Amino acid sequence: MQGAIEAALARIEPGPFTIAAAGRTDAGVHGLAQVAHADMAKEWDPFRLSEALNYHLKPNPIAIVQAARVDDDWHARFSAHERRYLFRILMRRAPATHQAGLVWQVSQPLDADAMQEGANHLIGHHDFTTFRSSICQAASPLKTLDALDVESVDTLWGPEIHFHVRARSFLHNQVRSFVGTLERVGAGAWAPEDVRTALDSKSRAACGPVCPPQGLYLAGVGYPSDPFT
Amino acid sequence: MQGAIEAALARIEPGPFTIAAAGRTDAGVHGLAQVAHADMAKEWDPFRLSEALNYHLKPNPIAIVQAARVDDDWHARFSAHERRYLFRILMRRAPATHQAGLVWQVSQPLDADAMQEGANHLIGHHDFTTFRSSICQAASPLKTLDALDVESVDTLWGPEIHFHVRARSFLHNQVRSFVGTLERVGAGAWAPEDVRTALDSKSRAACGPVCPPQGLYLAGVGYPSDPFT
Repeated sequence: MQGAIEAALARIEPGPFTIAAAGRTDAGVHGLAQVAHADMAKEWDPFRLSEALNYHLKPNPIAIVQAARVDDDWHARFSAHERRYLFRILMRRAPATHQAGLVWQVSQPLDADAMQEGANHLIGHHDFTTFRSSICQAASPLKTLDALDVESVDTLWGPEIHFHVRARSFLHNQVRSFVGTLERVGAGAWAPEDVRTALDSKSRAACGPVCPPQGLYLAGVGYPSDPFT
Repeated sequence: MQGAIEAALARIEPGPFTIAAAGRTDAGVHGLAQVAHADMAKEWDPFRLSEALNYHLKPNPIAIVQAARVDDDWHARFSAHERRYLFRILMRRAPATHQAGLVWQVSQPLDADAMQEGANHLIGHHDFTTFRSSICQAASPLKTLDALDVESVDTLWGPEIHFHVRARSFLHNQVRSFVGTLERVGAGAWAPEDVRTALDSKSRAACGPVCPPQGLYLAGVGYPSDPFT
């Protein structure tokens, strides 16, 4: 995604460009509400800039939803004070069709109440070593998790579980480690209290299986003063 | 879709098979809740039949969500007494990405209240010649429209309009003719009362532009006694 946007920028102004994005979106993760900034030579009208970029981004499945002019010291990543992620699990036996690649599909129903009970152990300021990829480059495993809400949603394609996760920042694979662990709780293989035990052990080996990326969406990025409003 | 399912059937029993489906789903339309029947030689367990068909349907984007055994005189099309369709319009300027092919995208906001006011003229028993494709093979243009509800929905991808349409049966292109006409009302190009005038004229030339198929979903089929419950 980054490369495609940088190439589109280079079609409208002399490059090369390097954009900085607010949140990680690994392969398979959907950068739905990704925010990035670039330094432009020309004073572009924001709407015309987004139109020009979308023209040059075709046929990539990437679109600029909104553009805004920002101060020189504004940084898409470092100015952000909140990231919101959504994770979708589709619970049905028949293979996903319209939603293939957009959900993590499991074949058995999951207990949303048990998953919420497990999730509640993760809220707050903790050492999240258990839920951190071994290749994570963050200086510290200490993070504050502000919200992890488990929602049951009936969709046209079948019953889904939506995880709404919110924090200032996340460790590498933290959301997928949470969801993979909570899925074990929802399936009845783990008790909700086992999440607490896993957290307290501060050991990567205590984490449940890390779930696949296809259900994960960067759903929002918060700034002290939002450039898009 | 029909051909792929018939081919999958022929992998598990000597064919050839011809399945009969409850509702039309033209190219680009999504057969989300399509119901079809086939005559099988063996007494299949319904769950095992759906599993075997889904195995042989790969990698087509087609899945059997549920199978059921029915009486010999039961017919997926002729026993149905209700069809429900959903039509999704995504209102945003930036090109659709995750929802490409799953919505009709328009770049300007639409007035849902005006569209509902226009839609209300269509409810009931009418001569729907205006909203019928010239290649429609139905014996009569008289149909009873039971519901046409216009709903504003906020989604992760942007604001959508959902049309929920319900009738015993539909004429060819009837839903797409409704939606294309109501879009003109939502955009302010038509007044809601113009829908009544178009209906009363009983002339295909009075219809608004027929909208594209990508937003249309067969969302449900009703039977006097539902074989799936």
